[in-house]
Amino acid sequence: MTENEMTLALIKTLKEGKKTVFQEIINELQPYDLAQQYQYLPAKHRNKFLLYLSIEQLTYLIVELDQDDQLEVLHKLGTEKSSKVLDLMENDEIASLLTDVDPEKVNELLSEMKQEESEAVQYLMNYPPETAGRIMTDRYVWIPKHYTVHEAVEKLKHFYELAEYLNYIYVIDSEKKLVGVASYKDLLLGKPTDKIEDIMFSRIVKVDVYTDQEEVAKLINRYDFISMPVVEEDGKLVGIITVDDVIDVVIQEANEDIEKLSASGKAIDFNTKPTIAAYRRLPWLILLLFIGLVSGGIISGFEGTLEQVVALAFFMPLIAGMTGNTGTQSLAVVVRGLVSQELNFKQSLKLIFRELLVGIIIGIVCGILIALIAYVWMGNIILGLVVGSSLLATLIIGTLAGTIIPLILYKFKVDPAVASGPLITTINDILSLLIYFGMATMFIARLT
Amino acid sequence: MTENEMTLALIKTLKEGKKTVFQEIINELQPYDLAQQYQYLPAKHRNKFLLYLSIEQLTYLIVELDQDDQLEVLHKLGTEKSSKVLDLMENDEIASLLTDVDPEKVNELLSEMKQEESEAVQYLMNYPPETAGRIMTDRYVWIPKHYTVHEAVEKLKHFYELAEYLNYIYVIDSEKKLVGVASYKDLLLGKPTDKIEDIMFSRIVKVDVYTDQEEVAKLINRYDFISMPVVEEDGKLVGIITVDDVIDVVIQEANEDIEKLSASGKAIDFNTKPTIAAYRRLPWLILLLFIGLVSGGIISGFEGTLEQVVALAFFMPLIAGMTGNTGTQSLAVVVRGLVSQELNFKQSLKLIFRELLVGIIIGIVCGILIALIAYVWMGNIILGLVVGSSLLATLIIGTLAGTIIPLILYKFKVDPAVASGPLITTINDILSLLIYFGMATMFIARLT
Repeated sequence: MTENEMTLALIKTLKEGKKTVFQEIINELQPYDLAQQYQYLPAKHRNKFLLYLSIEQLTYLIVELDQDDQLEVLHKLGTEKSSKVLDLMENDEIASLLTDVDPEKVNELLSEMKQEESEAVQYLMNYPPETAGRIMTDRYVWIPKHYTVHEAVEKLKHFYELAEYLNYIYVIDSEKKLVGVASYKDLLLGKPTDKIEDIMFSRIVKVDVYTDQEEVAKLINRYDFISMPVVEEDGKLVGIITVDDVIDVVIQEANEDIEKLSASGKAIDFNTKPTIAAYRRLPWLILLLFIGLVSGGIISGFEGTLEQVVALAFFMPLIAGMTGNTGTQSLAVVVRGLVSQELNFKQSLKLIFRELLVGIIIGIVCGILIALIAYVWMGNIILGLVVGSSLLATLIIGTLAGTIIPLILYKFKVDPAVASGPLITTINDILSLLIYFGMATMFIARLT
Repeated sequence: MTENEMTLALIKTLKEGKKTVFQEIINELQPYDLAQQYQYLPAKHRNKFLLYLSIEQLTYLIVELDQDDQLEVLHKLGTEKSSKVLDLMENDEIASLLTDVDPEKVNELLSEMKQEESEAVQYLMNYPPETAGRIMTDRYVWIPKHYTVHEAVEKLKHFYELAEYLNYIYVIDSEKKLVGVASYKDLLLGKPTDKIEDIMFSRIVKVDVYTDQEEVAKLINRYDFISMPVVEEDGKLVGIITVDDVIDVVIQEANEDIEKLSASGKAIDFNTKPTIAAYRRLPWLILLLFIGLVSGGIISGFEGTLEQVVALAFFMPLIAGMTGNTGTQSLAVVVRGLVSQELNFKQSLKLIFRELLVGIIIGIVCGILIALIAYVWMGNIILGLVVGSSLLATLIIGTLAGTIIPLILYKFKVDPAVASGPLITTINDILSLLIYFGMATMFIARLT
């Protein structure tokens, strides 16, 4: 059955009230596909669709939806059902659902949940967004270090439902401090009477609750882990972060880098409303408008030069465009390189020197090329030289600006990607026009 | 011990020839950290470092290195040791190591390996890069469907070392076709005498060997899987793809999107040599140079208009820059949206309509703003109106171009991100200049 056929079949069962057939179709679906079907369904059938789902199926559904749809579904379910769904959801999922929601609404939803669950969610919500504490889950299995392998396996069997990924079991001391980790393999290969303490691995890679989620993703990827334990300041184990959440983080962080590098506005996807999308993009565009005015101001400062040699205007977009692009190229290398690698001072210097060489090479190639073209086109060798040497200079400067500025931001713990929109574009635009018109003005006698 | 102290300690043991102390330090390291230490080490100590490592440690090390360093280390190890290391490495890792290596060198390396291993690697290398077949591993556990739970658990225990992630066991029929999957949980909760056939899950999510790796990443992320089975055309199980490789794919694909969106040149990282980095970036820049010449040509076509009203040049960078940026904004939304969601025709139309509205809103806001500024600055209301209405028109067109062009490419199965550099920039540059100077020429009598 294709997705489309399935939607039609579901609508048919809903119309005819055949709950059993409906359940047969739904039972075969993965959570993601269930959510897809809900979204394909015409609005008038959705209430009945929700009515026909079990609490467990509703939980699967809601986890896969966008925040707006999640809140809508919870509202449609009414207090009784939605409280059951919330109790079944994982705490990190509820915390993510409640992010940026009106505080009154948050309290209303939390009050519907079991005391214990609600407290656990509130505990997560205390951590800032995009930190380890906020995305961790409490579904893992821990054992005291004095346990034997046999006892550990028994506990594992008992909590099987609870543990999302069963590759590791975490070992704690009497103060709940994380002291070791044992893999399932260790348990299988060990003797039942072996002490966990003796077979566990104690050089644990762990993260603090306040660690940035990007850092967590970097570590999990670096060590090829399936999960990563999260501890409080005193070393107390409070949760784990699983690799499936890390993939979401990697995608989210890549999107944020792209948003910043292309100044494309925050968190706009296919479902964002036009007014909201416009609202999120406008700040960048208005900023660019004023940057454009600065460029305009510089050009107007050289009005005299431009009036004498109007042909100078022909090469203006080329020089500004290429300088901007070479800066963005360097910026992208720095920003994405930092995703998987740290840089110390020596490595930064090496990178700057590398980019300087790159700037010189591309500057010479493009400079000679445009000098020849300008000479042939305009029949003025001085104009060719002015355009060519301006491009050489601006490409070198553009490359360096695109490298050094994000490195300085990185050094001061500011996300280097924010440099793109405002800083690099402004600086490169202004510098390239100043150099170009400056040179042209110097040689104005030979150009006319 | 910090990383730096560790490097110093290692150098000391190497100089003094204390292999036991060296091994004590090394034993505590994760593979990634081992590779870091190798890279921190001054070149003169590296040979001895390699000499002190066991074959297993060398394998851990080599897996974490860049391709250039991998080949260098293999060369340093000599035929005997390097063949042992290659035999221990996973096949997908060897396949990735051999990608884009000189065919002669590939044959040399393969001939050092065991017949069986070498054939397995050659099998993977038959698949095109960035497909499921190329990144899959053969380290998984399969069982025939007539097995009982007891037999399955016994086989699992036996092959524990082999299986990278042990959450699933794959079930095949007599022709090696994949017919089901059973989780460890199913095995634990089942009775030892249960038939696997009866407890396995048979609606399997799987991928074909030729599936694009980006698609694999999308599926694994969508269903929160730890691994995904890979089958040949006839349904025969030939490998699995694990989530740790998927994170690498997600990062790689995000980098490729950024490279294309910012035209920043292919695969440049902190270690790329300056000549190679320049060589990879130059094609884009030279293309941009010719695009810039087209703009120059258009401007020269309006030389008469420009000579009469030089002030028109002041707003040129602003209009071209903002049109280019609004196009990139829309492009980024489309390209990144497609990472996690597919679009059908109806959804595409909805998106185009949404972007049209966005274009109108931002066009009106920015158009009015610049009209007022131009009027106040230049004291000419007609100039203000020309600049403002040009910007309104170009922003709408830029937004639509940035949406429609990648959607058309997507429809024809071309990666929409390639549109950025050449297409969107050219089209938006040319259109914005034509509209701007076209309008100005129409009102030239009122402008002077």
